[in-house]
Order: sequence, then C-alpha cells, then structure tokens
Amino acid sequence: MQTLENLLSHKTIRNYKSDPIDDAVLDKILEAGFRASTTGNMQVYSIIVSKDEEKRKELCKLHFGQKMVEQAPVLLTFCADFNRFNKWCEQRDAQPGYDNFLSFFTAAIDALLASQNVAVAAEDYGLGICYLGTTTYQADKLIEFFDLPKGVVPVTTLVVGYPAENPGLTDRLPAKGIVHYEKYKDYSSRDIDEIYEEKESLPLTAKLLEENQLETLAQIFTQKRYTQKDNVHFSNVLLKVLQDQGFMNNK
Amino acid sequence: MQTLENLLSHKTIRNYKSDPIDDAVLDKILEAGFRASTTGNMQVYSIIVSKDEEKRKELCKLHFGQKMVEQAPVLLTFCADFNRFNKWCEQRDAQPGYDNFLSFFTAAIDALLASQNVAVAAEDYGLGICYLGTTTYQADKLIEFFDLPKGVVPVTTLVVGYPAENPGLTDRLPAKGIVHYEKYKDYSSRDIDEIYEEKESLPLTAKLLEENQLETLAQIFTQKRYTQKDNVHFSNVLLKVLQDQGFMNNK
Repeated sequence: MQTLENLLSHKTIRNYKSDPIDDAVLDKILEAGFRASTTGNMQVYSIIVSKDEEKRKELCKLHFGQKMVEQAPVLLTFCADFNRFNKWCEQRDAQPGYDNFLSFFTAAIDALLASQNVAVAAEDYGLGICYLGTTTYQADKLIEFFDLPKGVVPVTTLVVGYPAENPGLTDRLPAKGIVHYEKYKDYSSRDIDEIYEEKESLPLTAKLLEENQLETLAQIFTQKRYTQKDNVHFSNVLLKVLQDQGFMNNK
Repeated sequence: MQTLENLLSHKTIRNYKSDPIDDAVLDKILEAGFRASTTGNMQVYSIIVSKDEEKRKELCKLHFGQKMVEQAPVLLTFCADFNRFNKWCEQRDAQPGYDNFLSFFTAAIDALLASQNVAVAAEDYGLGICYLGTTTYQADKLIEFFDLPKGVVPVTTLVVGYPAENPGLTDRLPAKGIVHYEKYKDYSSRDIDEIYEEKESLPLTAKLLEENQLETLAQIFTQKRYTQKDNVHFSNVLLKVLQDQGFMNNK
C-alpha cells in the first residue's frame, strides 16, 4: 500500500531547493496528469510549464509575492481549456456549443483532477508541491501573462521542486466533520464544538491568536485571511474572466 | 515507483461486482481524501456515502439510469461545503463572508482534489472507480435527495466497487496537445490535425461513426454527447443552484 502511504503523508512544501527537475521526470509527472479521469475523454484542459527564471519572478509578483514561486524550479498552471476542442470541432464540420458555464465547470473539473494526479506523481519522485489559491484571484492577469485565448481560464497552479524543509503533518478535521451517511446530517452547535476542538487547541492556534490579537481562530479567517471584501472583489474578477473568455453565453 | 505506475494504469470501471467494501477500507480511502491539499486548511467540502440499496436505486435514476450506480456497493458524492465553516464562524463571534462565487469555486477545488485522492487510494486497494459528470447536471435534484443546506453544492460523484471487467487503457491526446511552455501557443489547423490524428484513427472511432451515421468524431460530441442545448440548459440549472445555495451574493 505504498500509494496509500504516500497519500496519507502528503505535506505542502513552502521552501524549495533551486535544483532543477529532470525533463524526463517532469514529462512522467505530466503523463500521470493526462491519465486522470476526464469528462467524455475530452481532456478539456491545458498545462503551462514555467521554468524560465525571469518568468518565475514575474509570476511570483502576480501570486502576491509568495517567495516559493520564484524559488522552486517549476510552476505548473492548470487551465480549463475548450479552445483546442472548439478548434477541432470547427475543423471537423461540427458546431461547438461549449461557450457556457457548464462547459467551464466541466473543464475546471478535468483540470483539477489532472492537477492532483500530477501532485501525487511529483511526490512519488521525492518532489514537493504547493497549490496556489491566488490563481483564481489573479486569473485576469494570468490570462494576459500567458496569452490565453478565449475558452481558456487558469484554475490552479502547482509549485513543484525539491523540498528544502521537512514539515510535520498538518492537522485535519476528524472524519465525522466531513463524512455523511445516506443523507446530509446538519451540524448542531455541539457538533461544531467537537469537530473544531482539536484544531482550536493546537499550539499553532494559540500562536496565531497572540500574533493577530484576536479572540478566536475563526476571526483570523474572516478578518485576516479570507475577508468578505476580498472574496466579493475576486468573485467579480473571476465572473468577468468567465464572461471575457466566452463561458457565459447561457441562452 | 508503484504510485506512478498506479496512476499511469488508471482505467475507468463501468461494471462492478456486488461485493461490499469493508468499512475499514472505506475509512482509509476517505482519509486519503482528507489529506489532499485544501485552501487555508479549511477543508470546505463534505463527502456523502451512499451504501443503502434502495437509495442507490434512486440515485441511479437521478444519474440518468447509468446501471453501475446501483450495481456498485458505494457511491461517494463530493460537495463544495461552506455550511460547516460558516456555522463555526458564527459560533465563534466571526462574521463569515463566504456567500459568493469565489468561495463556491474555492470549495469546489477542495472537493475535487479530495475526490481524486480518494479515487487513487481506492485503486490502490484493487477497487475500481468511475466519475459521474451527471452530478452537476442534476445538482438541484441531488440537493433535494441528500437534504443539502445552504452553502452546500454537489460537484462530483465517485462510483466505487470491485471491478467486474478489465478494460484496456483509454487513448489520450499526445503531450504536445496539452502542455505549453512559458506561454500558451495557440493551435494551428495543422496542430489540430496532428493532435487528434491518433484518436480519429482508432477502431472505436470508426465504430462510433458507423453507429451514429455521422461524418466526424467531433460531430458525435456536438450532436450526440454534449449538445449546446443540453449545456445551456444545465448551465442554468447549475447557476440557479449556486444562487439558491447562497453562493451568488457578489456585492
């Protein structure tokens, strides 16, 4: 059960060596991505590889200055992509009808399943990975940066490289907080207390509360990390991107 | 490189034995899902396990009558879920601002990365899996079926069980069709011909063209499998679901 063990020991890496990744290794990792399930075997995604140092420095700025983005040797930007499929259809006397929200979401699913396979394969080679949530926040700027045509939207990015740190496992909520049987059993206030008890009692939490001078861990999320104001702003960025990239013709 | 080999030999399974899955095995597979990367370690997803035979029969109907849905012993419905997180915030004197499109998409990413880990772990146990794209088409009906509260939207489903078939590897596009270096290089008509050449020359393609009495494989997609009319219809279903589940307050 080596695979299971690999999955259970995943840790996000935020410090990387500058050692390059062999092309043969990178190709294999990407191939693992292609093997992920894909809707109707359409493979409606693309992967953009960034290795050039100057480019990675620019990408680092776009990803809110997260140092690992220029530190790691490879960045992989996963895009929902109907452009290639649409071009194929047009060239084969078929009228594509994929300029709508469902098609975007279908392509995003394809891209995300492929990304997770790539992440798992990379770790099998002793590489470390980190997902960048900033990809959707900065989708408009990444579209400009990568020259993405209509039908293509970046949905996530993987930083990939050899780890320069060996962090411990991160905490996770207990299974009863995530899994439901047959029906969704909504959470009572006692359930919520139980589910978050371990997380709230971690030394890391105490440290964060001290640093941020706040009363609860939840406030760190709502007031510092993921604020309503930012979420609303980036919602509108992403919706405008979907419009501009031709995914909102829903009539 | 057992993990890499597992990833490279993935095949979607559409015929299952009725053999049940051990609870201990199911728990481990789900645990592998929890270990996937998650935005800010929020784990904003839920997994609904369907094992009850009557329930699976009903779900089979909701998933367009795909027989494997009632044949396989376990169905896992992965939901983008901010309900639990919102309840936690409210109980901890924090004002959640996650009723917007960005938050939905963030939660969907979480759910999809977890689902792919579950798929890979299941295969490590000799189980087979199949993703159900019908989940987003029928999101409104699944919300009713599972009793999903506001803040919860189903995004994908995994059928899981012991395989009753051993299909060959499915074709995939060549890497040059998927991977770009540094910038997106848009496809020329010659590129498109090359990328789709192998797929178009498969015996399976010839068979499909004969069965459907159509000229090109692309037409099978646009006229039979994923038509504009269906895509537009299901786009509106999904957008209404996002509205109804409280994910479109973007002001």
